[in-house]
Amino acid sequence: MTTAAQSANTAAAREAFYQRLAAKNMAPLWESLKGLVPREPTPNAVPAVWHYAELRDLCLEAGRMITAREAQRRVLVLENPGLPGSSRITQSLYAGLQVLMPGEEAPSHRHTQSALRFVLEGHGAYTAVDGERTTMSPGDFVITPPWSWHDHGNQSDAPMVWLDGLDIPLVNFLDAGFSEDDPRDIQPVERPEGDSLARYGTGLLPLGERRGNGAAEVGGAATSPVFNYPYERARAALEAMRKREAWDPCAGLRLRYTNPLDGGWAMPTIGTFLQLLPAGYATRAYRSTDATVFALVEGRGRTKVGARVLEWSPRDVFVVPAWSWHTHQADEESVLFSFSNRPAQEKLGLFREERGT
Amino acid sequence: MTTAAQSANTAAAREAFYQRLAAKNMAPLWESLKGLVPREPTPNAVPAVWHYAELRDLCLEAGRMITAREAQRRVLVLENPGLPGSSRITQSLYAGLQVLMPGEEAPSHRHTQSALRFVLEGHGAYTAVDGERTTMSPGDFVITPPWSWHDHGNQSDAPMVWLDGLDIPLVNFLDAGFSEDDPRDIQPVERPEGDSLARYGTGLLPLGERRGNGAAEVGGAATSPVFNYPYERARAALEAMRKREAWDPCAGLRLRYTNPLDGGWAMPTIGTFLQLLPAGYATRAYRSTDATVFALVEGRGRTKVGARVLEWSPRDVFVVPAWSWHTHQADEESVLFSFSNRPAQEKLGLFREERGT
Amino acid sequence: MTTAAQSANTAAAREAFYQRLAAKNMAPLWESLKGLVPREPTPNAVPAVWHYAELRDLCLEAGRMITAREAQRRVLVLENPGLPGSSRITQSLYAGLQVLMPGEEAPSHRHTQSALRFVLEGHGAYTAVDGERTTMSPGDFVITPPWSWHDHGNQSDAPMVWLDGLDIPLVNFLDAGFSEDDPRDIQPVERPEGDSLARYGTGLLPLGERRGNGAAEVGGAATSPVFNYPYERARAALEAMRKREAWDPCAGLRLRYTNPLDGGWAMPTIGTFLQLLPAGYATRAYRSTDATVFALVEGRGRTKVGARVLEWSPRDVFVVPAWSWHTHQADEESVLFSFSNRPAQEKLGLFREERGT
Amino acid sequence: MTTAAQSANTAAAREAFYQRLAAKNMAPLWESLKGLVPREPTPNAVPAVWHYAELRDLCLEAGRMITAREAQRRVLVLENPGLPGSSRITQSLYAGLQVLMPGEEAPSHRHTQSALRFVLEGHGAYTAVDGERTTMSPGDFVITPPWSWHDHGNQSDAPMVWLDGLDIPLVNFLDAGFSEDDPRDIQPVERPEGDSLARYGTGLLPLGERRGNGAAEVGGAATSPVFNYPYERARAALEAMRKREAWDPCAGLRLRYTNPLDGGWAMPTIGTFLQLLPAGYATRAYRSTDATVFALVEGRGRTKVGARVLEWSPRDVFVVPAWSWHTHQADEESVLFSFSNRPAQEKLGLFREERGT
Repeated sequence: MTTAAQSANTAAAREAFYQRLAAKNMAPLWESLKGLVPREPTPNAVPAVWHYAELRDLCLEAGRMITAREAQRRVLVLENPGLPGSSRITQSLYAGLQVLMPGEEAPSHRHTQSALRFVLEGHGAYTAVDGERTTMSPGDFVITPPWSWHDHGNQSDAPMVWLDGLDIPLVNFLDAGFSEDDPRDIQPVERPEGDSLARYGTGLLPLGERRGNGAAEVGGAATSPVFNYPYERARAALEAMRKREAWDPCAGLRLRYTNPLDGGWAMPTIGTFLQLLPAGYATRAYRSTDATVFALVEGRGRTKVGARVLEWSPRDVFVVPAWSWHTHQADEESVLFSFSNRPAQEKLGLFREERGT
Repeated sequence: MTTAAQSANTAAAREAFYQRLAAKNMAPLWESLKGLVPREPTPNAVPAVWHYAELRDLCLEAGRMITAREAQRRVLVLENPGLPGSSRITQSLYAGLQVLMPGEEAPSHRHTQSALRFVLEGHGAYTAVDGERTTMSPGDFVITPPWSWHDHGNQSDAPMVWLDGLDIPLVNFLDAGFSEDDPRDIQPVERPEGDSLARYGTGLLPLGERRGNGAAEVGGAATSPVFNYPYERARAALEAMRKREAWDPCAGLRLRYTNPLDGGWAMPTIGTFLQLLPAGYATRAYRSTDATVFALVEGRGRTKVGARVLEWSPRDVFVVPAWSWHTHQADEESVLFSFSNRPAQEKLGLFREERGT
Repeated sequence: MTTAAQSANTAAAREAFYQRLAAKNMAPLWESLKGLVPREPTPNAVPAVWHYAELRDLCLEAGRMITAREAQRRVLVLENPGLPGSSRITQSLYAGLQVLMPGEEAPSHRHTQSALRFVLEGHGAYTAVDGERTTMSPGDFVITPPWSWHDHGNQSDAPMVWLDGLDIPLVNFLDAGFSEDDPRDIQPVERPEGDSLARYGTGLLPLGERRGNGAAEVGGAATSPVFNYPYERARAALEAMRKREAWDPCAGLRLRYTNPLDGGWAMPTIGTFLQLLPAGYATRAYRSTDATVFALVEGRGRTKVGARVLEWSPRDVFVVPAWSWHTHQADEESVLFSFSNRPAQEKLGLFREERGT
Repeated sequence: MTTAAQSANTAAAREAFYQRLAAKNMAPLWESLKGLVPREPTPNAVPAVWHYAELRDLCLEAGRMITAREAQRRVLVLENPGLPGSSRITQSLYAGLQVLMPGEEAPSHRHTQSALRFVLEGHGAYTAVDGERTTMSPGDFVITPPWSWHDHGNQSDAPMVWLDGLDIPLVNFLDAGFSEDDPRDIQPVERPEGDSLARYGTGLLPLGERRGNGAAEVGGAATSPVFNYPYERARAALEAMRKREAWDPCAGLRLRYTNPLDGGWAMPTIGTFLQLLPAGYATRAYRSTDATVFALVEGRGRTKVGARVLEWSPRDVFVVPAWSWHTHQADEESVLFSFSNRPAQEKLGLFREERGT
C-alpha cells in the first residue's frame, strides 16, 4: 500500500472514528486545538467609526418612527461590522445611541447588566437611579448599576442623545441575565438631586457606610455609589494634571473613573476613561486585550488601527478591537471618553497590554 | 386608510428605515431587546451525561488512532448536545477526556487558559508544572495555572484517563487567549515532588511568600500554588465533616478547594468542589447561574434536571445547565467532584442561586 | 493553729515564694490578673479642654521665647491632666499647638510617626510634602505621611497656629520610631501646588497608579496621597449632606476623611472626622474605645463627659477619654473636627462602641 | 550684661514660662522632642532567657501553693528584667508559664485580648473554645481568640505546663480591654474534637463559610478558625521544606502559622512562627522592630543579642528586644517556636527589618 493510500486510509479511519465519537457527543480535540487555543487573540470585531453628523438625522427619524414608550428604550444599536446581527460593538460589549425626545419618558426597569450613559447632545434630561434623579449634560458619565431601578425623562424642549454602553453580551455569555419591569412605571423621587455625589464624591464618606446603593455586590464587585460624574469636574481633573506634564507616550493623559468606596473601577465589569491629547500630539503604538469603544467630546483627529484610519470629530464613536496595534493623532486638543471590559479581564487575570517603541 | 393598511405602512416604513440603519452599521434595539435582556437566563446548553463504561473503549481506540505527540493533547472533547460543533460542555467551559498511553508524553506548552485535571483511571502518570512533577491517582485534582509551562507523562504500564476542564470558551470570548510551545519539549525537574503541597498545604507558609507560582496575577486573580490536591486528603476532609452532620438540604456536604494564600478559589475563573451524599440521600431542588460539570468518584444514583434524569456511576461525567432546577439522589454513598465558572461570576457580581422548599 | 494564723502563714509563704520567683524574673499572675484583664477599659486620661482664647498669648509668647529653627518644631504640647509629664493627650496620641511666626521656616525632616495638621489661625503658611507645597487656611486638614520629608514655612505677615496630632505614643509603645533630618534643610519644590489634590481628589485616578506618595506601605497601611483636604470642600460636603437630614442621634452628621486609593482611612493609624451639629442639637449618649480629640471650627456649645462639662467655642480643643459616656450640645450651628486611633483599633480587631437610648 | 547672665536669664525666663504652660496643661515640645521622636527604636526591654530546668520546680510549687480555681489562671508571668513590675516580656506582649495539675480545671471566661498556648510539658489536658475541646501535646500551638469563651482542664495524671502569650499590654495601652466570666463555669462540648481542624485545615472549605468562630472581626482582623495547630503537622512542614534546602541566611527555615480563610496571620495582633536550624547552622545578623519571644522545642544552641549570649535547650524561653542585632547558633538540629507583634506592626505600616551581611 502506498503512503498516499495509507494516509487516505488513516484519514478515512479517523473520519469514521469521529462519526462514532459524535454519536456520543464527543469530538477529537486535535482537529480544533489550534483554533481553541490560539497563539494570540484573533478578534472577529473590526475597527469602525460612527460619525455623529451622519447619524443625527437617523436618531431624530427614530424619534418620529417609534415612541420611547413603545420602544421601551429607543436605541440605535452600534453594531460592529465584524459581528453582524449580534447587537455587539465588541465581542463582549454592547453600545447604542439612545434618543429621548422632549417630554418623553423611558419607563423604569432593572436588569443585572451594567449600563453607562455618556451624553452626546442635549441638556436637561434626567436619569433616575434608586430614588435619585440626576440632570444630564454633554460629557457627563452616568451609571445605572446592576439590578437598580432606573428610568429616564426628557424635560427639556430639545432632543437628547447619549451613548449607551452595556455588558449585555458578557452577561448573556455567562447565562446570568435577569430583568424586571418596574410596576411603578416612573419611580418616585426620594433623595435630593446631587445627593450621591455629595455623599460619596468629596473625599469624605459618611461614617459607617462602606457599601453602595442597592446594586448586587458579591466578591468586591460593587458599583460606585456616585452615579453621575459631571464632565465639568472630570475635565478640570485633566486640566490640573496637565500642569505637571506627565504625558504618557501611548495615551497622553488618561484617567480612569473610580469608585470612592474602594478606589477600584466605577463599574464591576466595564472600565471607563477620560483622556486628553494636546493639539499635535501623536501617540506611540499600543495594544491591549480589552477592545475599546471611544467617544469624542472635544477636538479632531484620527486613530490608526493597523491599516485602517478612523477620522474623528466631536460626538463620533469608534471602536478599536482587542490586541490591535493603534495610534492616536490629535489635530486639535482633544478629549476622548472610552470604555472597555478591562475590569472583567483584570479580575479574571486575563488583561495584557503591550507598548510600541 | 384602514388600520391594517396603516399598520402595514408602518411596518414597511420601519423595514425601510432598518435597511438604512444597517447601511450605517446600526440596528433598532426595540426589535431585539427582549432577547438581549431576558427575564431570566435561557441557556442553550442542555443536561447531558457521558457514561464512562461506554466511552472507555473509544478512549483506548483514540490511543491507537493518534499518538499523544501528534495530537499534542489526545483529548476527546465532551460536547454539549445543545452547543454542537463548539467544543463546549457549557457556554463558557470546555471539558474532555485526556488519554495518555503507557510511555507517552504530552509535550510542554503554556496558555492563558486555566486548566484542571481530575483523574478518572490509572496510576503513575505525572503532570509537571513549573519544574515540579506530581504523580496522579484517581480522584486527584490537579491544576495547571495560566501561563505556566506544563507537560504530562505516563510512566506506568497502563493507560491513564483524566477529565480536563478549561475556561477556553470564556477566554476566547474575552479575546484574551495566548499560547506558546515550550522549546524544551519536556521541562526539567527543578523541585522535589510534593514541594508545593509541603510549602503551601499545611497551614503554615514560608515567611515573606504571599504569591503564587508564576501565573498571571492581576487584581487578586491568582491560582493556588498547591497544584495537586490528593483525593485521599480531600476525602478525609469530607469524612471529618460528616461527624458533625451539618447536612445541606440541597447539597449534602459540599466543600470547595481553596487557595491557601488567600482563602479564595483555587483557580481564578473556575470553582472546584467535592461533595458527599450519604446512601439514600435525596437533595432538595436547587438552581444557580453557574452551569456545573460533575464527575462521579464513588457511588451510584441520579440527578434530575427538569424532566431529564441523568443516571450516574463511577467515572461518569454529567452537566447541569445554568439556572436549571435539579435534585440529586444517591442510591449508595456517593462522592462527586464538580466545577463551574462560579468564581468568574462572583468577581463580576453576577452569581445568583435559588433553593427549593 | 487558728485560721488567722494559717492565713498569715499562707500569706507569708506566698510572699516568700514570690521573692524567689522575682529572682528568676517571674511573678504570680493571680496577684495582678484583675488589673491586667479588666472588665472594661479604665483609661488614665481624663476629660479636658483647652480654650484658645486663653492660649493664644502663650502661643505668641513662645514665638518670642524661641525661634522655630532652634525649637525645630515650636509646639506647645497639650498634655492630658491624667497623664502628666508624658506628652500625651490620650494614652496613644499626641497633640500640640504649633506656632509659626511671619517669615519663619521649620526645617525638613521625616519620621515614621504619622502627623496631621488642623489649621486654627492664619493664612498663607505652607506645608511641603515630598516636593509639593500646599498653602494652609483655617479648617484645612493636612497630612504629613510616615517617612515623608516635610517642612513648613510662613510666608504671610501674621502668625500661624495649627493643631498637630501625631501617633507618637503608639509608635514609641511599639518600639517602631525612626527619624531623620533632611540635609537639604528646606526641600525644593518639584510639583505644582494642588497636584496631589488634582491627581487623587476628583473621583478619577491616573491609570495604573494605585499607590501613594512614598510613605511606608505594608499590609494596606497606606496614607492618602491627597495631603491637603481644604475646609471649603469638606464644609460643602456637610452642607450637601444636611439636605437629606439623615441625622445621627449620637453624632449629628459625621463624615470621615478617606483615602481615594482604597476608600479607607486617610491615615494608617489615626482616623479624622468632620461633624455638623445644627443650632440647638443635643446628641444622645455615646461611648467608644477610641479616645477622641476635638477641635472647634464654627459654633458654640458644650460636651458633657460623665460629670464633666467642657464648654467650647471656635479654636478650642478638647478630649474625650476612651469608653466614656458623653453628649454634645450645640448652642449655635457647630462644626467639629476630631481625630482618634480608631483605624488602629479596627485593624487590630479591638474597636467597640455603644449608643445610649 | 554678660552672655552667661543673658543665658541664665533666658533659662530662668523659659522655666517661668514653662510653669505658666504647665498650669494650662501644656508643655514645650522642644524640651522633649528628641526623646519623643528618636533616631531609631530604643527599647526598654532587654535580652533575657528563662531555663525550664530551673523553673519546673517553681511551677510545681505554684501548683501546691494555690489552686487553679483560686488563681483562675495559675500562671508564672515571665517579666522582662528591663520592664520590672509591668507583667510584660516585651513592651507590648505578655508571656507566662501556665500550670495545670492533674484533675484541675481553669474556669471558662473570655476577653478581648488574644491568647496563644504553646505546650511545653505534658499530654492530655484540653483547651475548649466555643464548644470544641482540643487535646494538647508538646509543641502544639493553640489559639483562644478574642472574646471567645475558653477553659482548660487536665484529665491526665501528670502536670501540664504551657507557655501563654497574650497581647495584654497592647490592648491595655489602647484602652480596649474587656473581659467576662462564664456563668457556666465549664462550657459544654458542642462539637466533636478535631472539628475546626477538619473543617478549615485541609485546603478545602465549607462552601459559603468565609468567617471565623465568633471572635471579634473588624477590618479583616479575624482569628484563624483552626485553633489547634498540632506539632506533628507543623514539624512535617519543616521536614518537607528542607528537601528543597532553601535556607535563609538569617533564619534557617522559618514558617508562619496562617489563617486558612485569608492566608494572613493566624491571630490578629500576634505573629507565630516555627523555625528549623540544622545542626551546626549559624545565622547572619538580623534585627527587626518586632521584639520576639522564642520557645525551644528541640535542639540546643545559643542566641547572641548584642553582647549578651542566651544559651538554650528544650523548653527554654528567651526574648530578643526590638531592633536588636542578633544571631542564632545551633549545636544540634533545633526547632524554635516564636511569637511577636509583627501583624500589628504590619497593619499599622510600622514593621521594619534589616539583615546583616
